[in-house]
Amino acid sequence: MRFKLRPSDDAFYEFFSKAAANLVRGTELLNELALPGADVQSISERLVEVEHDSDAITHELYKKINTSFITPFDREDIYRLGSLLDDVMDHLEAVGSLLYLYGLTKLPSLPREVHEIVDVLDQQAKLTAAAMPRLKTMKDLSEYWVECNRLENEGDRAYRMLLVRLFSGEYDALTVLKMKEVADELEAACDAFEHVANTVETIAVKES
Amino acid sequence: MRFKLRPSDDAFYEFFSKAAANLVRGTELLNELALPGADVQSISERLVEVEHDSDAITHELYKKINTSFITPFDREDIYRLGSLLDDVMDHLEAVGSLLYLYGLTKLPSLPREVHEIVDVLDQQAKLTAAAMPRLKTMKDLSEYWVECNRLENEGDRAYRMLLVRLFSGEYDALTVLKMKEVADELEAACDAFEHVANTVETIAVKES
Amino acid sequence: MRFKLRPSDDAFYEFFSKAAANLVRGTELLNELALPGADVQSISERLVEVEHDSDAITHELYKKINTSFITPFDREDIYRLGSLLDDVMDHLEAVGSLLYLYGLTKLPSLPREVHEIVDVLDQQAKLTAAAMPRLKTMKDLSEYWVECNRLENEGDRAYRMLLVRLFSGEYDALTVLKMKEVADELEAACDAFEHVANTVETIAVKES
Repeated sequence: MRFKLRPSDDAFYEFFSKAAANLVRGTELLNELALPGADVQSISERLVEVEHDSDAITHELYKKINTSFITPFDREDIYRLGSLLDDVMDHLEAVGSLLYLYGLTKLPSLPREVHEIVDVLDQQAKLTAAAMPRLKTMKDLSEYWVECNRLENEGDRAYRMLLVRLFSGEYDALTVLKMKEVADELEAACDAFEHVANTVETIAVKES
Repeated sequence: MRFKLRPSDDAFYEFFSKAAANLVRGTELLNELALPGADVQSISERLVEVEHDSDAITHELYKKINTSFITPFDREDIYRLGSLLDDVMDHLEAVGSLLYLYGLTKLPSLPREVHEIVDVLDQQAKLTAAAMPRLKTMKDLSEYWVECNRLENEGDRAYRMLLVRLFSGEYDALTVLKMKEVADELEAACDAFEHVANTVETIAVKES
Repeated sequence: MRFKLRPSDDAFYEFFSKAAANLVRGTELLNELALPGADVQSISERLVEVEHDSDAITHELYKKINTSFITPFDREDIYRLGSLLDDVMDHLEAVGSLLYLYGLTKLPSLPREVHEIVDVLDQQAKLTAAAMPRLKTMKDLSEYWVECNRLENEGDRAYRMLLVRLFSGEYDALTVLKMKEVADELEAACDAFEHVANTVETIAVKES
C-alpha cells in the first residue's frame, strides 16, 4: 500500500471549481437581467440564492482548511483564493440588486457599455471556471491569468466610456448617480476576477 | 528560575486591546454626533484626537515589532492587524469630519439608515474590543468573527437602503452627493471591522 | 573565484528603480496637464505610453521572479512591490485620461486643490524614486516611508477640501460628478504611493 501524502487535495480543488462554476451562473443571470423585458425581481432573487450558495461553499472551504493537517498549497493562499472568488460573487449580486432596487431596468434600455461589461464578466467567469481544475497540476495557467487581465483592461475601457456617456447630459442627475453605482459594481467585479487571477499567479510562482 | 520563552507577548495583546478600545470611543462619538442638536464641531474635533491616539498606538506597535526578537505570532500578521485596526479609525474620523465639513448636521435630521449603520459600527467596535484580549489564548474567537461578519452584512443592507433613499428624489443633487460620501465612509468602516475579523480568523487558522 | 551567492540581486533593484523613475515621468506629465492652455490630448497620450512602459517593466520583473532561483528578498514581496508600483501608474494615467475624456481642461481653471494634490504626487514620486536604490542596503528607508505617509495625509486633506469646494454649489451637477472622478483617482494615486511605502516598510521589518 502506498502512503498517500496529500489525502485531502482533491477536495480543495473541488471547492475552487464549484465556486467558479457558481460565478458562471452569476454572470449568466446578469446577462438575462440586462435584456429588455426581463423579470428583474425574479432574476435578482435567483442571484441572491447563487450568492448564498457561494457563501456556503466558502464556509465549507474554511472549515476544510481548519480541519486539514496537510493542504495542497499554503493555507493562507487557499484561504485568500476562496475569499476572492467569494468577492466576485458579492459584486455580481450587487449589480443585480442595484438594478432592481433603483428601478433602472424600467429605462427603455441600458447603456450599451453595461452590456459590454457584462459580456466581459461572462468571459472572465468561464475562463476562471476552466482554470480552477488546472490548479491541481499547475499547468497551462499562465494563459488564463494573461487573458483574465486582458479582459479586465477591456472592461475598464468600457467602464470609462460608460462614465463619459453618463456624464454627457443624456440622463438626469439622479439616474446618473444610480447608474454610476451599478457601473462601479460592474467594474469592481472585473477587478475581482483579476484579483483571483493574480492570486493564482502568485500561487503558481510559489509552487513552481 | 523558569525560562520565559515569549517575554513580550503581553505587550502586543495590550496594543491590540488599546487600539480596539479606542474604536469604541470612536463609535460612541459618532453616536453623539448623529443626535439632533449635537455640538458637531467639538465632537468632530474629539474624533480627530481619538484618531491621533490610534496613530500613536499603531506606531508604538510597529516600534515594538521592530525591536522584539520574539513575537507571539507572525510579525507580518501583527503588523497587518495593527494597520487594519487603524484603518477602521480613519473611516470613523472621516465620517465625523465630512458630516461637519459638508454642514450635513444642519439638516432637520439625518436619514434613519445613517443611525442604523452607526449602531452596527458601535456593536462591531464592542465585539472587537471584547475579542482582542482573547487573542492570547486563541479561544472563543470564532463567535467574534462570525458575528462581526453578520453585522457587516446588516450594515451593507442598511447602506443599500440609504442609497435607495438618497436617490429617491427626496434630496437635492448636492445633498445627495455629500450624503453619499458619508455613506461610503460608514460602509467602509463596517468593511474595515470585517477585515479585522478576517485577519483574526487567518491568524487563528495559522496558529491552530 | 568567489562564489556569488545572489547573482540576480541588482537586476531586481534596477526594475524597482526604473518603475519608480517612470512614476516621476508620470507626475511631471500630470503637472503639465494641469497648466492652463496645455495640449491635453498629446499629454494624455504620452501618459498612456508611460503607463505601457510601466506594464512592460512589471512583466519583465515577473518573468525575472519566475526564472530566478534566488531572490534578494521574498518572491511574494518582490511581486507585491512591483504590482503596487504599477498600481500608482494606473491611477496617474487615469487622471490624465479622465481630464481629457470629460473635457475638464476646457474649464477656465482647475480647482486649486487639484494642483495641490498633483504637487503632493510629484513629491511622493521623487521620494519613491530616491528610495528604491536604497532597498539594496535596506538603509535610510524609514525617512522615506514616514515622509511618504505624511504626504499622503497632506493629499488627503487637500482631497477633502476639494470635495467641499465641489459640493459648494460653485459647479453644476455633471461637472461635480466628472471632477469627483478625477479627485478620486488623484486620491487613489496618493494612497497607492503610501501602499508602496508600507510594503517597503514591511520588507525592511522582515529583513532586519
